[in-house]
Amino acid sequence: MSKDDKHISSKWRRKIHEVIYEADTSAGKLFDIVLLVIIIISLVLVMVESVPNLGAKYAEEFILAEWIITIFFTIEYALRIISINKPAKYIFSFFGIIDLLSTIPLYLTFFFGGLNALLAVRSLRLLRIFRILKITRYIGEADKLTKAIKSSGPKIAVFLFAVLVVSIIMGTVMYLVEGPESGFVSIPASIYWCIVTLTTVGFGDIAPVTPFGQFLATIIMIMGYGIIAVPTGIVSAEYSQGKKKEDTPPEATNYHHVNTQTCQNCHSAKHQDGSHFCHNCGNPLDD
Amino acid sequence: MSKDDKHISSKWRRKIHEVIYEADTSAGKLFDIVLLVIIIISLVLVMVESVPNLGAKYAEEFILAEWIITIFFTIEYALRIISINKPAKYIFSFFGIIDLLSTIPLYLTFFFGGLNALLAVRSLRLLRIFRILKITRYIGEADKLTKAIKSSGPKIAVFLFAVLVVSIIMGTVMYLVEGPESGFVSIPASIYWCIVTLTTVGFGDIAPVTPFGQFLATIIMIMGYGIIAVPTGIVSAEYSQGKKKEDTPPEATNYHHVNTQTCQNCHSAKHQDGSHFCHNCGNPLDD
Amino acid sequence: MSKDDKHISSKWRRKIHEVIYEADTSAGKLFDIVLLVIIIISLVLVMVESVPNLGAKYAEEFILAEWIITIFFTIEYALRIISINKPAKYIFSFFGIIDLLSTIPLYLTFFFGGLNALLAVRSLRLLRIFRILKITRYIGEADKLTKAIKSSGPKIAVFLFAVLVVSIIMGTVMYLVEGPESGFVSIPASIYWCIVTLTTVGFGDIAPVTPFGQFLATIIMIMGYGIIAVPTGIVSAEYSQGKKKEDTPPEATNYHHVNTQTCQNCHSAKHQDGSHFCHNCGNPLDD
Amino acid sequence: MSKDDKHISSKWRRKIHEVIYEADTSAGKLFDIVLLVIIIISLVLVMVESVPNLGAKYAEEFILAEWIITIFFTIEYALRIISINKPAKYIFSFFGIIDLLSTIPLYLTFFFGGLNALLAVRSLRLLRIFRILKITRYIGEADKLTKAIKSSGPKIAVFLFAVLVVSIIMGTVMYLVEGPESGFVSIPASIYWCIVTLTTVGFGDIAPVTPFGQFLATIIMIMGYGIIAVPTGIVSAEYSQGKKKEDTPPEATNYHHVNTQTCQNCHSAKHQDGSHFCHNCGNPLDD
Repeated sequence: MSKDDKHISSKWRRKIHEVIYEADTSAGKLFDIVLLVIIIISLVLVMVESVPNLGAKYAEEFILAEWIITIFFTIEYALRIISINKPAKYIFSFFGIIDLLSTIPLYLTFFFGGLNALLAVRSLRLLRIFRILKITRYIGEADKLTKAIKSSGPKIAVFLFAVLVVSIIMGTVMYLVEGPESGFVSIPASIYWCIVTLTTVGFGDIAPVTPFGQFLATIIMIMGYGIIAVPTGIVSAEYSQGKKKEDTPPEATNYHHVNTQTCQNCHSAKHQDGSHFCHNCGNPLDD
Repeated sequence: MSKDDKHISSKWRRKIHEVIYEADTSAGKLFDIVLLVIIIISLVLVMVESVPNLGAKYAEEFILAEWIITIFFTIEYALRIISINKPAKYIFSFFGIIDLLSTIPLYLTFFFGGLNALLAVRSLRLLRIFRILKITRYIGEADKLTKAIKSSGPKIAVFLFAVLVVSIIMGTVMYLVEGPESGFVSIPASIYWCIVTLTTVGFGDIAPVTPFGQFLATIIMIMGYGIIAVPTGIVSAEYSQGKKKEDTPPEATNYHHVNTQTCQNCHSAKHQDGSHFCHNCGNPLDD
Repeated sequence: MSKDDKHISSKWRRKIHEVIYEADTSAGKLFDIVLLVIIIISLVLVMVESVPNLGAKYAEEFILAEWIITIFFTIEYALRIISINKPAKYIFSFFGIIDLLSTIPLYLTFFFGGLNALLAVRSLRLLRIFRILKITRYIGEADKLTKAIKSSGPKIAVFLFAVLVVSIIMGTVMYLVEGPESGFVSIPASIYWCIVTLTTVGFGDIAPVTPFGQFLATIIMIMGYGIIAVPTGIVSAEYSQGKKKEDTPPEATNYHHVNTQTCQNCHSAKHQDGSHFCHNCGNPLDD
Repeated sequence: MSKDDKHISSKWRRKIHEVIYEADTSAGKLFDIVLLVIIIISLVLVMVESVPNLGAKYAEEFILAEWIITIFFTIEYALRIISINKPAKYIFSFFGIIDLLSTIPLYLTFFFGGLNALLAVRSLRLLRIFRILKITRYIGEADKLTKAIKSSGPKIAVFLFAVLVVSIIMGTVMYLVEGPESGFVSIPASIYWCIVTLTTVGFGDIAPVTPFGQFLATIIMIMGYGIIAVPTGIVSAEYSQGKKKEDTPPEATNYHHVNTQTCQNCHSAKHQDGSHFCHNCGNPLDD
């Protein structure tokens, strides 16, 4: 391959990289929208396919559609690997694995036959939407929420432990009080019922029938409500504090407007507007 | 028509406009109350008519009552159009369309026969109550709530997206784990169950029966509770902040007392007390 | 009746008044405790009597116990009227009516026979506990809560109206979508289901079965959760504000320690410690 | 016993004390982890044993495993008593009683036969985890939560009383309105249903069927939601206040880093880092 060929190839690769990985150009935006539509169609197909009547009636159409989507994803996956300088970095990244898993379900049917167990794998395509949506204005909000949830981490762990302890002790007691006739067939089932009750879901598939069991259930509900009020209070307090911090010093905001460029060399993202070189490896960025 | 006739007509139109569109005069107030009563009667009729026994027994009475209400609404609608200078503006406004929809259900039965599908249209009359209630003291509160909800918009979108993602992934998994025997007949049904569980509604029409399914359900419930704590926290934080802002600078309140006058010419509302001319088009207002 | 007799009678009446209406003396405290125990026994009897097996088996014992309680309440009611200067004020006060209603159920059976409908009247005795408990340290807290709820009044009215509007419109739509086969037998039943779903109670006695109905139910649940997050947020914001106000200026607290004395003449309560005369009518108080 | 023997015994006792009661040395940490694993295995066994199929099939294996665990706990309990100077203090402490109860279930079967009623006692072993976990970083968070809950005490009592009053009155009314045919078999059952509804659990095992009963249920749900919003608001307000207090004066934090040493003499814990003598009795601590 002459230097010129390499240059052309490099130019092509840069072009593909820009379209696939970024969303600043109109081609890049179009690609993202097409991808989004195909992912959503693919998800709808998975759902509709599971509906007993439709799944049997249009079996062939579903397989055809899945083939088209698989081929599209295969090409896209190949292009993603080709257009980047260090493919390994992409392949073993979170979204690289998701992309691979989105592509292979149909190929796996050659080896394993039944499509059924692969439905869950196919529904993972949903996660691909996250990458596309990273460019939306909601990312800031999601960020704040994630922070609030993260800083509530230890408290929520305590809360979960409390739920678990109450469920195990009360589950055992309810199993002894109510017994298998009322649906409390085993301690695990009884613990399941306790969590259903504590979280105020209350399916009613299992319900106490003895007066004493109902009395204990009453205590679980009210106690449960007390426990469950805690995470709401915590998230509320953390969130309003995070909000205050952000509001008070207006110059302290460490958000700068980031664009959708990703470095072709090291695959790092979140470059500031107007950057010409990657902030990580110094590789020139696409204009 | 001589100029004098026109003047008389104009006077009549102004009088009607004042009664129908405003609530400052005793006639206007009376009209609003009569309208409110008729709307409520009409809504009660729709409800009672659907009760199997009553609907069949008093079929004739119901049709008679609906005729009386329809005629009243027809006259009112005609007067509303006549008394305003630019009827098109009213006809295509939100409440103009609601008024039309409130009037026509019975007329439509001549063309389509069955009343059944028109029940929903008739229940839209409920929305007319909003216009009448705009004069109450609750409007300020509703305003604040609406603001709190609006400013929480992007956060709630993120939250809804989280609910959707969890529901789709866990719904697919639950469909595979539980299968059609337990009521998880398809992935959409399974997603429906997931949302029922995440929101802690828990009908119990579908409930997991396998131990692993129950274990997953437990995780969904607790995860769900975490997710669901978020909007409460957000609304609480937004609301208490909105409240603080309002409380702190007492001179900054941009609420002035508005009356119920609406301009006969351009149909614009919310005129300040003591206004003699429309703030939008300069047309003189009714005294 | 000589002046001396009157004096003795007056002394007796003062003594009775002190024991029955107040809780500063040990006799008064003892009376309150005895009354509390009898009320609780009376409530437990009402409950236990309704249990099918027990009610039939111990029918005679229950009637005997009810007679004893009724006689005690009758004597107490008579003493309350005798020992006060203006009995009418007591008789037509809230607690006066409750006391009368607590006394008469058994007497009414002579006229109306069946005890069944009087169960609700007998359970009103519960409200008598409130008067006795007014002396506890919880009254301050209850006061704060009541204030928070009161100041949230208009907001909660808006919230209730929102729940009602959503329920009526979605109830009608669900009735049309699901129809009587799924349990949506009438629009009122459908509205009932909507409120059950909006409040996340979710009995499951009625549940949508058509895919479109389930989709709408999903929307109601999530919308419902949004609506329902509001009162929690409001109460939280109001409460924490009420708390702040109270905390900030420690000298501004307008709580003074009140005792349990009530004026024998005008029946007014909440006298400050160390008062010798009624702050309302000037009548000397019991020491 | 010579002084030397006593010295050796004392040394051994100190060694055992350090391993069992503390977690600063690697031996102590290992012991804690082994204990934790055995407790969890023991809990899992209790649960699995209750599953009908497994319990019968592996009955012998379960008894064998329980024997091994019981022997381990017996030895541990003996060592705990031996290695401390004032055993009575340990035996009658909260965790001392829990340790005893964790050890004896199997011995009790010699006297009482059936294992069934002892399941609850065996599940109390769960509480032993708390002692082991006291050294984790979550203790601070749990502390804060406990404080928030404690300082909300009186408010929560008021709330519980409100729930109780509403449940008793509405329970009686619902019993009269619905009657035994709809599942409201007695007033206690009806009160149980009321609490299930107020806490928005909504099992659906009992549900109103008459229109008036459904109307009342609607009121209970909405009223219930109002009541139930209160504890969330309270916890939220208390928690965010506790947080603020802690954040504001950074020097005021009365947390010092405590280690896991416990005095061999007086069994008191929470010694500051670097302490050489017990802060309670002056006994030298293990290094």
